[in-house]
Amino acid sequence: MARNNLTAKGEVMSVDSRRPRVGVIGTGAIGGFYGLMLARAGYDVHFLLRSEFEAVAREGLQVNSAVHGDLHLKPVQAYRSAADMPPCDWLLVGTKSTGNAALGPIISQAAAPDAKVLLLQNGLAVEDQLRSVLPDSLHILGGLCFVCVNRVAPGVVAHEAFGAVSIGYHSGPAGDEASRMAVVEACSELFKTAGIDAPVMANLQQARWQKLVWNVPYNGLSALLHTSTSQLMTDPDSQALIQALMDEVVQGAQACGHALPPGFAQHLFTVTQSMPDYRPSMYHDLVEKRPLELEAIYARPLAAALAAGFDMPRVRALYQALAFIDRANRSANEE
Amino acid sequence: MARNNLTAKGEVMSVDSRRPRVGVIGTGAIGGFYGLMLARAGYDVHFLLRSEFEAVAREGLQVNSAVHGDLHLKPVQAYRSAADMPPCDWLLVGTKSTGNAALGPIISQAAAPDAKVLLLQNGLAVEDQLRSVLPDSLHILGGLCFVCVNRVAPGVVAHEAFGAVSIGYHSGPAGDEASRMAVVEACSELFKTAGIDAPVMANLQQARWQKLVWNVPYNGLSALLHTSTSQLMTDPDSQALIQALMDEVVQGAQACGHALPPGFAQHLFTVTQSMPDYRPSMYHDLVEKRPLELEAIYARPLAAALAAGFDMPRVRALYQALAFIDRANRSANEE
Repeated sequence: MARNNLTAKGEVMSVDSRRPRVGVIGTGAIGGFYGLMLARAGYDVHFLLRSEFEAVAREGLQVNSAVHGDLHLKPVQAYRSAADMPPCDWLLVGTKSTGNAALGPIISQAAAPDAKVLLLQNGLAVEDQLRSVLPDSLHILGGLCFVCVNRVAPGVVAHEAFGAVSIGYHSGPAGDEASRMAVVEACSELFKTAGIDAPVMANLQQARWQKLVWNVPYNGLSALLHTSTSQLMTDPDSQALIQALMDEVVQGAQACGHALPPGFAQHLFTVTQSMPDYRPSMYHDLVEKRPLELEAIYARPLAAALAAGFDMPRVRALYQALAFIDRANRSANEE
Repeated sequence: MARNNLTAKGEVMSVDSRRPRVGVIGTGAIGGFYGLMLARAGYDVHFLLRSEFEAVAREGLQVNSAVHGDLHLKPVQAYRSAADMPPCDWLLVGTKSTGNAALGPIISQAAAPDAKVLLLQNGLAVEDQLRSVLPDSLHILGGLCFVCVNRVAPGVVAHEAFGAVSIGYHSGPAGDEASRMAVVEACSELFKTAGIDAPVMANLQQARWQKLVWNVPYNGLSALLHTSTSQLMTDPDSQALIQALMDEVVQGAQACGHALPPGFAQHLFTVTQSMPDYRPSMYHDLVEKRPLELEAIYARPLAAALAAGFDMPRVRALYQALAFIDRANRSANEE
């Protein structure tokens, strides 16, 4: 573990600047996978857990990866409370976007004074929401994960394919473009030295729209139709529906000023066809009776596109159907 | 029972013209309800059954009606095969529209030479399909049932609300408008004397579009979201989706030359709000792993509207989602 030192100003700094301290807020499939990969590369990684604390403290973290083989981290620097975590230089946030409003005090407690917070979530404007509950001194970065991971048991993650994280600067103390890019480059470097592809994104908003072209059809339809990508990709009707939804998201992005590369939707469609069978997170959220991430993935993009003059009728219909099952699912959970 | 007589021409006629013989093809919820109501009014009614023959032959037909009380018909003139039925003056067809292509020989065997066939199904162009498999000598009428009925056990139907059948002439030997209206009026009279409201429709096609304004949202969403009308009518998102789907169907009808009365969709919406809780037939078809009536209720209206220059994007998305679950449902049935 890196030792800490109090400076004259009372700030807590890492002694070894080449070994930054990383905190993982929300050690589910995403946080568990990337956190373990960084720890494996030698970084000083601390994991905040809730329901799985006991299991991980006792058994460690396990990633069964189709790419990297079976990986095990034990012991794990695991915490029940952010107040017990040492100040971290980097914070990877892998919680559900449905809980972002409550993240302010948690992140602040675990953050070094000028920490960089990388938000590993899907959807639109998730960083804006986090910004409103964090001090100005913290950098916020957005990270888009192109990875197929699932939590299969407490502390056990199945990594099925891919792994890249695209990173962009959102807001914070970096005043000019050069400083912002320096932070993003440092973050990218962190992942790259852990063997993870980490492209730098010049335009975070555009990248979030690009990710939505995948998430809107596949996350929603996997939950609504209770199915997986390979089933969706072998049925002619769901194929046509996916393409129509993708086209609407591309037009929504365009209306919001983000012209996506030509053929981008078709590219994602083709990639998904050759991907191993996968059940996106929204499917698992539904089955495990967690709230669905409808605000970030549907409601905000719909509102943004509508404000720019473009309604997405099929996306809205899908959203309304999902909102219905989400409400029924939550009340079932309360029973 | 009315006795039959061979005329000089060899045609089989009912002796008592005021007591027509009625055959019910498909004794499910619809056929069972209307057939029992007609038998109760004194008509000579014969029921064709398949899987429920034994139960109905033994126990009779039961309609537990919220409107008329508990009704029981026993013995029932029940048949396993149309070949065993006496020639019927009227044939009420209450089978699923998914089986229409196979109805030709069945109806022909049970029909008196100039029989009137009343098709009690939802969807578009169901009569066209039947016309192609029936001899020209038979009249085809279309009937739109505004009734909440469900088959709850073999030979047992729950009648929850309403009951009207709107009737229009489709095709057959009636050469001019006056002859066509005479047949429709006679059919209407048949039902009215049995205590069933039976308005005459001047325009069958327009009436079918009007019925679709209800069937498209409620049948499909009850199956897709695995729910009932009252749940759909208390959730703000499903309410909005229902209204958007209704609006599209109204526009589709308009494109096809059928301008529906102003406020018609809102009227249906309001009626459904005050209706007892109801699970439409498509819900039951899904649960009981029967084919869904997607061709008549979705594919044909979509094709007709598109041919007239109007796509119905939300209706198409709903159809594609239903086609996916229908396919999965049928293959589950084969397992």
